[in-house]
Amino acid sequence: MLLSGGLDSATAAAVAKSEGYITYGLTFDYGQRHRREIESSAAIARSLGFADHIIFPLDMRLITRSALTGQSQVPLDRPHAEIGLQIPATYVPARNIVFLSLALAYAETIGSTDIFIGVSQVDYSGYPDCRLAFIEAFERMANTGTKSAVEGAPFRIRAPLINMSKAQIVCLGVQLGVDYSLTWSCYLGGRRACGRCDSCRLRLDAFEKAGLKDPIEYEVR
Amino acid sequence: MLLSGGLDSATAAAVAKSEGYITYGLTFDYGQRHRREIESSAAIARSLGFADHIIFPLDMRLITRSALTGQSQVPLDRPHAEIGLQIPATYVPARNIVFLSLALAYAETIGSTDIFIGVSQVDYSGYPDCRLAFIEAFERMANTGTKSAVEGAPFRIRAPLINMSKAQIVCLGVQLGVDYSLTWSCYLGGRRACGRCDSCRLRLDAFEKAGLKDPIEYEVR
Repeated sequence: MLLSGGLDSATAAAVAKSEGYITYGLTFDYGQRHRREIESSAAIARSLGFADHIIFPLDMRLITRSALTGQSQVPLDRPHAEIGLQIPATYVPARNIVFLSLALAYAETIGSTDIFIGVSQVDYSGYPDCRLAFIEAFERMANTGTKSAVEGAPFRIRAPLINMSKAQIVCLGVQLGVDYSLTWSCYLGGRRACGRCDSCRLRLDAFEKAGLKDPIEYEVR
Repeated sequence: MLLSGGLDSATAAAVAKSEGYITYGLTFDYGQRHRREIESSAAIARSLGFADHIIFPLDMRLITRSALTGQSQVPLDRPHAEIGLQIPATYVPARNIVFLSLALAYAETIGSTDIFIGVSQVDYSGYPDCRLAFIEAFERMANTGTKSAVEGAPFRIRAPLINMSKAQIVCLGVQLGVDYSLTWSCYLGGRRACGRCDSCRLRLDAFEKAGLKDPIEYEVR
């Protein structure tokens, strides 16, 4: 399980648990602007009873530049209609590719064949590495390039939320008992979520559409 | 350019230089048994006039186990006929997948579209991530999952040695002026190469078949 500390990966983890998987979590300390996400990932892993949870240091700033790792401005207060129209400044080059590759190394080591990732292509925020076509291409690549697959135990990249809107994800998570108060989505790392960045606004919008109240605190709702 | 410090990636780098590329090197400090490989990679990057060379810390031991990272024995003195018959103990789960993914992140950041890797499937030592089918699958995956590719600048994974024997690689490198005294192939990290591990023996065999003398020193030839 790739576990970011956010709402989507927490929900995907709950799906894996509900299917009876023994879950192993992998979270990257990749130079995020703040520690909130990483702390949230640990809380989620504990709350869902993960068998193990590794926080892997990976300083993406050595080779990439992105607003998400503090090297350029996070855009705030973009007109809502603009979200999803272009690949945002928070795009980290090849991020999910790198994350899935390391998850694959971990999975192959522990003898697991199923890797869960909480991406969705519905509320498509412009990230090419959140689309089903990418997930399928990654799976094919993994199954030509690893010992396990070549020896007859192919990998499956499981993206159970891929065709769900964020509102649907929240509904599913609530059904599965996910404690969303443990999750963190804001691009900034304040005491409370900012309520203004793309990530906060997509999250607030999802809870509103689902007819539910987001249990975390916001500066601005 | 993925640059390991070994003979193959040094030769692939010389191919890139001969084609007129401005070269950027990426080497991983991934918990190898010794520093010799990393020191060699820096020497090769200097000797070939790389525009930049990043040594990226990546502690694969956190998520993998392999003889190559010191967690089990490197097999020595295997009967020569056995080399290549099975995936060896030095296999690191998903290693080239992880390395190419980070090279992709780096390439996308600096605006490069061509990634060179010095793998060969001819003297196939049993690593599934050294085969052309894998390289092609990785390229397709990269071109569905990155912003650059989606916006019209697809990546090419260049493996110029893929169909060359190690003897042919050495011949080509010598023609291109590669200084093989700077390279390191031995799985162990002694003052001199051991001459007994698979990597030493494949290298010595290649020089012998090419009718050339390997300029590095060995404990046993």
